[in-house]
Amino acid sequence: MTTTPPASAADGAAVKAADRAHVFHSWSAQGLIDPLPVAGAEGSYFWDYDGNRYLDFSSQLVNTNIGHQHPKVVAAIQEQAAKLCTIAPGFAVDVRSEAARLIAERTPGDLDKIFFTNGGAEAVENAVRMARLHTGRAKVLSTYRSYHGATAAAINLTGDPRRWPSDTASAGVVHFWGPFLYRSPFHAENEQQECERALAHLEETLAFEGPQSIAAIILETVPGTAGIMVPPPGYLAGVREICDRYGIVFILDEVMAGFGRTGEWFAADHFGVTPDLLTFAKGVNSGYVPLGGVAISAEIAATFDKRPYPGGLTYSGHPLACASAVATINAMAEERIVENAAEIGAKVIGPALREIAERHPSVGEVRGLGVFWALDLVRNKETREPLVPYNASGAANAPMAEFAAACKRGGLWPFVNMNRTHVVPACTVTEAEAKEGLAALDEALTVADAHTDAA
Amino acid sequence: MTTTPPASAADGAAVKAADRAHVFHSWSAQGLIDPLPVAGAEGSYFWDYDGNRYLDFSSQLVNTNIGHQHPKVVAAIQEQAAKLCTIAPGFAVDVRSEAARLIAERTPGDLDKIFFTNGGAEAVENAVRMARLHTGRAKVLSTYRSYHGATAAAINLTGDPRRWPSDTASAGVVHFWGPFLYRSPFHAENEQQECERALAHLEETLAFEGPQSIAAIILETVPGTAGIMVPPPGYLAGVREICDRYGIVFILDEVMAGFGRTGEWFAADHFGVTPDLLTFAKGVNSGYVPLGGVAISAEIAATFDKRPYPGGLTYSGHPLACASAVATINAMAEERIVENAAEIGAKVIGPALREIAERHPSVGEVRGLGVFWALDLVRNKETREPLVPYNASGAANAPMAEFAAACKRGGLWPFVNMNRTHVVPACTVTEAEAKEGLAALDEALTVADAHTDAA
Repeated sequence: MTTTPPASAADGAAVKAADRAHVFHSWSAQGLIDPLPVAGAEGSYFWDYDGNRYLDFSSQLVNTNIGHQHPKVVAAIQEQAAKLCTIAPGFAVDVRSEAARLIAERTPGDLDKIFFTNGGAEAVENAVRMARLHTGRAKVLSTYRSYHGATAAAINLTGDPRRWPSDTASAGVVHFWGPFLYRSPFHAENEQQECERALAHLEETLAFEGPQSIAAIILETVPGTAGIMVPPPGYLAGVREICDRYGIVFILDEVMAGFGRTGEWFAADHFGVTPDLLTFAKGVNSGYVPLGGVAISAEIAATFDKRPYPGGLTYSGHPLACASAVATINAMAEERIVENAAEIGAKVIGPALREIAERHPSVGEVRGLGVFWALDLVRNKETREPLVPYNASGAANAPMAEFAAACKRGGLWPFVNMNRTHVVPACTVTEAEAKEGLAALDEALTVADAHTDAA
Repeated sequence: MTTTPPASAADGAAVKAADRAHVFHSWSAQGLIDPLPVAGAEGSYFWDYDGNRYLDFSSQLVNTNIGHQHPKVVAAIQEQAAKLCTIAPGFAVDVRSEAARLIAERTPGDLDKIFFTNGGAEAVENAVRMARLHTGRAKVLSTYRSYHGATAAAINLTGDPRRWPSDTASAGVVHFWGPFLYRSPFHAENEQQECERALAHLEETLAFEGPQSIAAIILETVPGTAGIMVPPPGYLAGVREICDRYGIVFILDEVMAGFGRTGEWFAADHFGVTPDLLTFAKGVNSGYVPLGGVAISAEIAATFDKRPYPGGLTYSGHPLACASAVATINAMAEERIVENAAEIGAKVIGPALREIAERHPSVGEVRGLGVFWALDLVRNKETREPLVPYNASGAANAPMAEFAAACKRGGLWPFVNMNRTHVVPACTVTEAEAKEGLAALDEALTVADAHTDAA
């Protein structure tokens, strides 16, 4: 671990002032934000200009799976920059070919052709386009409690409030309910029942929508920002079987869950399921250079063998991005980073979180795997009433805002969404770092406890 | 100029084989393509593994405005990689602030807030979202003969055949006709008449669509891939006035035309017009790292001052991309690269192309400015019948395919679209390089001539 480099508070103030003068931020009321100026980052930590260092339990937006500033990836970017920063998608380039090969080698089944994009939203856009053209059908089914990106098709598929302002009711998207035992939409009492009822609900939705009009079903293998709901055994296999029965393309969105996050290269590996299309981004190169993509089955790729695929982008298969993916994947393999995520999750984070849940009245449920965990915070463990209402803001969201502030005071940068906090450190997180973060989380949860009925 | 580095034909074959095994290419029938393996690039040239060097008159996809491998930009990427590759959009970062400031300093009028994306399509997606939320209206008008990107909203706005397979008739997009004197939709005989009739056509379209239902009009300031139709004097000012009259947001798409391409920082500078939103990508950092964005007027930014802006992306304001933009913009200013584009266009390319047009029966019209020129190829200069039909493929497109092949044989990499070839070298192109390319183009045009009625 390095020590915090010299940086002055005055520098930080200047960076923030420059930001407020000209930078328009994602998902924000521009006049109400106070962005922290970041001076640097390394491994599991980043720091500001005031001497504060934070243990990054958010992996930024759950993308720095390999941690900050991994030296092998930094070196690969520097070497590729010296060689060839950019070239159009129509050419063949060594690092583009190699990135595609390394990804195809790891994706399940016959998902062996890789279409590169700049990020996850574009990956979803292109997967949906492929599915619609492959089937000749228009409608796509996705779940409530999901996030698929913010371009037009991707945001229409999203099942959280970020969709509302940009929704196009006519976009051919139908939302259904996925399994989530803790807050079961189906009043199920155990995982097997949740699985059966969720599949029956999907079957019934298909029957009323007309299976012959459905191009695709898209699911996050393990829904991410929506709450890290690990699907019950049999659910994804059941969806696969339904898709096969009706000729529907099965898309798994692994933008957040892929590349080690769950302790496997892809979350689908936990369930032995191969989709027809798999979308990825984030962990593929830890976001060191913008990159995403779609892994495509042989059957769907064949659809576009003689017929042109009508989609593209200037930076598809960007050399700098591909070089960073090659270095990231190789480093993850060489350094057993995926295995580390699995082990830390199973041996350190999971047990510690379950123990924390027992002691804190605010922790309703702990769920997850690998380095992908959610704490579902509640006012009351019996009623499971969320600590804050769905999509709360302002005063109604104060308990979560206070909890997040307490984490930061304790040197922990949390990932907070609605009534949940997610424990999503880098896949490289050490046992000592995990324990440091869990201790800070434990302490901060006393602030959440004060808002429960038990207080 | 460097000499071609050592690279073997066998290496090239291996790169191509690896590409064909796993890379799925943009806009292509995967079984019918034969991608050239590129071994390296510098300045105005790139080369393959067989010892062939090409003068890049395409700037890849019209994005390497600063040429290939500009040393200052390469160094900036390497330095930023060593410091901080990525950080989430919610933080303030020095290079993000500085990139926004440098862009805002150059955009027209009060377009002083910058929302960063990964590329042009996402920039258009977000500009349209801003316009819809700012006005509370749904419909957006764009032109036929346009390209705005390939995500759902962007492709619906596009006015070329790439839209057809992904079109959503219900997406709230209406297409109208922009000015194009050489193939006038309005049967005009001179620029003034074309301008007046194009504005009258837009007014009439608005009247029948209902101006109070229109959120935005989006135009490429100078349409790019669609044919580099420089708008007649007064047209953009006329659209600005119409937008003001009806409270419609005016979006100028400068993804291709911006950052020096036309011999000004922005093409809007030629016309003295300030839009409400301006989209950019490509030239902002020559595509060395994926980057795009929207420059936002004070009035529209104020809409999202207290109300959250409902859009975002993991890599918004990506540090590595922003660092490359800072270096690119500074290098362009220090080295007078925008001025070079203007001078080479006015003194070398424009005059040479007009002289070429006189000698070649296949060249119907030459149009453009800066390093942004189109040759409209025809069978017959009188009838102006295009050398190949609109959206031709296969045998019907043979004249253009033969012309492109002739360019490549002559060491020139052309930009070819339908019946046109565009002369779009780097803004850094020297007089000697421009003359070398123009000579190769002159030679290749004899192949096009053979397909004219004059042959």
